[in-house]
Amino acid sequence: MIQTVEWTDSGVRFIDQTKLPTEEVYVTCKTHEQVADVIRNMVVRGAPAIGVSAAMGIALGVKNSNAETAGDLKRDLDNICDLIGKTRPTAVNLFWAIRRMKDKFENLRLRPLQQIKQSLIEEAKRMHAEDIAANQAMGRHGAALMPANGGVLTHCNAGGLATCGYGTALGVIRAAVEQGKKIHVFADETRPFLQGSRLTAWELVKDGIPTTVISDNMAGAMMKQGKIGAIVVGADRIAANGDVANKIGTYTVAVLAKEHGIPFYVAAPFSTIDLETTDGSGIPIEQRNSREVTHIAGKQMTPDGVEIENPAFDVTPAKYVSAIITERGIARAPYGETLQNLAGAAVAG
Amino acid sequence: MIQTVEWTDSGVRFIDQTKLPTEEVYVTCKTHEQVADVIRNMVVRGAPAIGVSAAMGIALGVKNSNAETAGDLKRDLDNICDLIGKTRPTAVNLFWAIRRMKDKFENLRLRPLQQIKQSLIEEAKRMHAEDIAANQAMGRHGAALMPANGGVLTHCNAGGLATCGYGTALGVIRAAVEQGKKIHVFADETRPFLQGSRLTAWELVKDGIPTTVISDNMAGAMMKQGKIGAIVVGADRIAANGDVANKIGTYTVAVLAKEHGIPFYVAAPFSTIDLETTDGSGIPIEQRNSREVTHIAGKQMTPDGVEIENPAFDVTPAKYVSAIITERGIARAPYGETLQNLAGAAVAG
Repeated sequence: MIQTVEWTDSGVRFIDQTKLPTEEVYVTCKTHEQVADVIRNMVVRGAPAIGVSAAMGIALGVKNSNAETAGDLKRDLDNICDLIGKTRPTAVNLFWAIRRMKDKFENLRLRPLQQIKQSLIEEAKRMHAEDIAANQAMGRHGAALMPANGGVLTHCNAGGLATCGYGTALGVIRAAVEQGKKIHVFADETRPFLQGSRLTAWELVKDGIPTTVISDNMAGAMMKQGKIGAIVVGADRIAANGDVANKIGTYTVAVLAKEHGIPFYVAAPFSTIDLETTDGSGIPIEQRNSREVTHIAGKQMTPDGVEIENPAFDVTPAKYVSAIITERGIARAPYGETLQNLAGAAVAG
Repeated sequence: MIQTVEWTDSGVRFIDQTKLPTEEVYVTCKTHEQVADVIRNMVVRGAPAIGVSAAMGIALGVKNSNAETAGDLKRDLDNICDLIGKTRPTAVNLFWAIRRMKDKFENLRLRPLQQIKQSLIEEAKRMHAEDIAANQAMGRHGAALMPANGGVLTHCNAGGLATCGYGTALGVIRAAVEQGKKIHVFADETRPFLQGSRLTAWELVKDGIPTTVISDNMAGAMMKQGKIGAIVVGADRIAANGDVANKIGTYTVAVLAKEHGIPFYVAAPFSTIDLETTDGSGIPIEQRNSREVTHIAGKQMTPDGVEIENPAFDVTPAKYVSAIITERGIARAPYGETLQNLAGAAVAG
């Protein structure tokens, strides 16, 4: 399994996703500031991976703290969380991870500092293990929705590289393939950051799953030609009503799916579901640097003086979503009810 | 006006569209083989520009011929046309240009060779002038369809660079702007060849028309946000029933337009309408080299071993097309009738 993010004795270690698919390089962060940079610069990306990376960054920062009282350590924790919380606004897993680490701290507040530090490290490592288990559970639930034989389109990377391993959308595909289903993946290249061509294709080729990379604008033609039997994508945040924020272009894929009568599935751990946000209009959409659009591989592709839009995400209204696959089971419309029901459920096996 | 393709005393001169937007470089072809290469390698592209470039390439090849009889010159003409006809299969303007040059030759067959050669050069130059006039007529007809104030999305480049100047889709936008309409253009970057970011943005910025470049996969989000009031694109071939072959991704834009209730217009000279092809299924779709998808600016973006699709065009069924804007007037559904009617019409002023 790919080691997307890992706690090591010398720091938090990441596979550098900006270097894939041609170079497999790892970076080890020794401070929480370095972890924040790594999240901001998309060395690590994908909502679940961002959540666990944040937790490990917080654990690292607390471990490095020189505080001598619980009060001082709490102040350091708050500063660390503030810095890490400012890296990527859309991924709700980031805030879920911060909340969980803060809650853990509160529960330990009266213990010796060394024990608090060690427990926070263990909590981050536990979140890492839980993430992989959640992906595998999603895979078991979602595999039944995949065609026995046919093309499955995915957008961006919701794979092992977007999580701690196995993947959400790609976890569903992996589980279906493990069950003997004959799936051919169509991976949208996913401009501007090319997570599809660089990351999804890399990890699927590594696993021997047949994969075709297409430009984003070819998805409609592939559907019209009957090459796509299902669509499965990940999510960066899901509102209480089932509206899904995910990588820019997901909404376009969802509209195309509707037009062609192809099911459109979202696979995400429960930590991606934000029951406090009523609908998609309340999800902040990160605008990234226009240089991601204007320059590719260092080469300028647009004339000076042109304007650029670069929203990192879009919102797909719940009405386009055939089902949401979580580790607790599958939710279908009306999501306002079914997501609430899952919130009360234990993790299904 | 941009000199996309031009007859000069030293050969056929092209602006090298592979070098834009950062370098404005011109190449002069001295043989028809060079013209064929220039079309194949997309130094010149865009269906109307391909048509006129082909005519000029034929005129150049015939001019260079050492034939001493009309029979030998005819054999040379056929060989030249065969070579040029194999460059880009989808653009019907290419075959229209070849047909027109061959017909011209037949009409001149009994004349002195020098006169035949001169007349073919004049015919190619006439097609160049007619193309610009057709674009300007399309602009006059189409401008009324543009919003008085708002965003207009276009895909690929159907501008001065796709024609002999002024443009088809961008000609409509230019005419609307000249009438005082306040238009902000959204240009899909148009992977894999980036005609939108490199060419459309370049020529619109040159003209001072406000333009925003977006990744192809942002079009849906822009429409949902209410930023797009109309869509206008070009065409590489239009079948008798109104099905439109155009740059890959056009179909996706058309589906999005329907979902959002935004009018979707196609602007093309009558030479793009192929009344001998019943519907879109009869249009050959060129597959281009997979390297256009795998490498950008020389950098490998996909892992070794992955499959690639790279159709240069897709077909948008007539039911998605709000109107087809030609130099002879505007056609609306049912296109089977209205395109036939235009075929019988004179060029409208």
